Amino acid sequence: MEKIAVIGSGLIGRAWAIVFARAGHPVKMYDNTTGAVDKALGLIDEGLGELKNAGLIEDAPATIMGRIAAAQSLEDAVGDADYVQENTSEKVDVKREVYRMLDEAAPAHCILASSTSTIQTSRFSEGLKGKHRCIVAHPVNPPHVVPIVEVSPAPWTAPEVIEKTRALQEKVGQVPITVKKEVEGFILNRLQAALLLESWRLVGEGYVSVEDLDKTIRDGLGLRWAFMGPFETIDLNAPGGVSDYAARFGPAFDSMMSGVEYKPWGQELIARIEAERRKMMPHEKHAEREAWRDRRLMALVAHKRAQDALDD
Amino acid sequence: MEKIAVIGSGLIGRAWAIVFARAGHPVKMYDNTTGAVDKALGLIDEGLGELKNAGLIEDAPATIMGRIAAAQSLEDAVGDADYVQENTSEKVDVKREVYRMLDEAAPAHCILASSTSTIQTSRFSEGLKGKHRCIVAHPVNPPHVVPIVEVSPAPWTAPEVIEKTRALQEKVGQVPITVKKEVEGFILNRLQAALLLESWRLVGEGYVSVEDLDKTIRDGLGLRWAFMGPFETIDLNAPGGVSDYAARFGPAFDSMMSGVEYKPWGQELIARIEAERRKMMPHEKHAEREAWRDRRLMALVAHKRAQDALDD
Repeated sequence: MEKIAVIGSGLIGRAWAIVFARAGHPVKMYDNTTGAVDKALGLIDEGLGELKNAGLIEDAPATIMGRIAAAQSLEDAVGDADYVQENTSEKVDVKREVYRMLDEAAPAHCILASSTSTIQTSRFSEGLKGKHRCIVAHPVNPPHVVPIVEVSPAPWTAPEVIEKTRALQEKVGQVPITVKKEVEGFILNRLQAALLLESWRLVGEGYVSVEDLDKTIRDGLGLRWAFMGPFETIDLNAPGGVSDYAARFGPAFDSMMSGVEYKPWGQELIARIEAERRKMMPHEKHAEREAWRDRRLMALVAHKRAQDALDD
Repeated sequence: MEKIAVIGSGLIGRAWAIVFARAGHPVKMYDNTTGAVDKALGLIDEGLGELKNAGLIEDAPATIMGRIAAAQSLEDAVGDADYVQENTSEKVDVKREVYRMLDEAAPAHCILASSTSTIQTSRFSEGLKGKHRCIVAHPVNPPHVVPIVEVSPAPWTAPEVIEKTRALQEKVGQVPITVKKEVEGFILNRLQAALLLESWRLVGEGYVSVEDLDKTIRDGLGLRWAFMGPFETIDLNAPGGVSDYAARFGPAFDSMMSGVEYKPWGQELIARIEAERRKMMPHEKHAEREAWRDRRLMALVAHKRAQDALDD
């Protein structure tokens, strides 16, 4: 599991190149749009500079850049690869065609992993000779900062492909989890959906403003979730642990959510929430605020690493 | 809004005494259990030492302790108070009786605020002469570390009581939000319920382990939510903002959550989740891990303050 191919040079592909190269892996990058990889290499160099500033990489950016090469064809990129991270467009037909080509061009031992957030492994790998080596490894944007990777196999994905994918992701500093059965949205987006649908409903029905709801998370629940997750949070919130918590608060949660129904977000509500956000942040500040978010994410990850080191 | 009375000297009452005293307010603390306040003062002193170590207070702990006095009776505590923060037991009958006494003993201008997480303002203030000055100011444990405070008025709470409560909470460094209409669970616990019910279901139906689900939040979504909240997160995740995000991803969220039904947590599932947690953390480490959580929360809050200062 040494040589990595990254297919697609957009935001996610570039971040993956950083993830693998900073961990010492040689990376070949391919994109079927002419000139896209050259442009991507420039952006990767910028990204490495930001990571260096945030104290998140030790090697010099130039050293890491030296491990990333542009490939001239898909065959050139994957011909000697041990692991492919694919980041093409989120269309089933495109993925099917890409995986047909990858399965033909990559050596037999090579794992074919997709960054898709919406397409199950079984949908793009069905019928392929190498369907046992296909898997989803879904990151969160941007994966060179946010470490979670959802590893989601098809029913026919070989167990060692799951294990090797998890092991590689751990080795390069990501945090893999396994989605044991295929499910729409995997785990992360289902959890996001659960929180978002209730958030939209609470604003929609006039219980709270957009700004106050965000504060409830970022100055409340989000502080715990940033280093514990929901189960450890409740386990520590009752003297007898999770079962004690379930006995004390389970019925209250059932009661408060029973009868709740979620409707699709209507145009009026969308416009209202958009207007509330635009009062807080005008549209022309979007790119600047995105950069702020990425800086804050990097600083938070650096903070967590330093705290984890203190714990050890 | 100078003189504060804290009624009840448990975990939450002690934390409130710290919140108000560290901001410079004189605090009188009362508990109807003999000796409870003396014990509480010792624990408050320990808590202040921890805050000092975490860089979260500037004054010496002794200076802050000097602002907190034990009251000999409820009347002594609230007789000249401007604001009462009440932390008695979560029983409607107890609250009603306590508020009857508070309404009699506190001067007419004094605000009567409850830390309750489950009882609406209208339920404990109905029929009181001073019902217009009663309100919920619900914190998250521990409020001297986690800043969110849910301000939830009854329909008859005076608008200036809402405003003054928010203003006081802001002045002492908390982050108040307004719950505009009474609702079970206020905002925070409804959002927690939404995430927890889906989390329990995903583990219950065999999609993911307890440990992996926690990782999905703490190494994924929780990193963003710790400083943005869900609306700013999605606003920045689409170039055109919230309405662009809703158009791109709204239907996927509806689809993934449609048909989902939550059942009460059964004994078998509770036992399974308890067992998974106990493998990760044996029961005898509970208190030690709680202390770890509080250290990490304090360090995270200190980190966020330092980052906010850089942003300015």
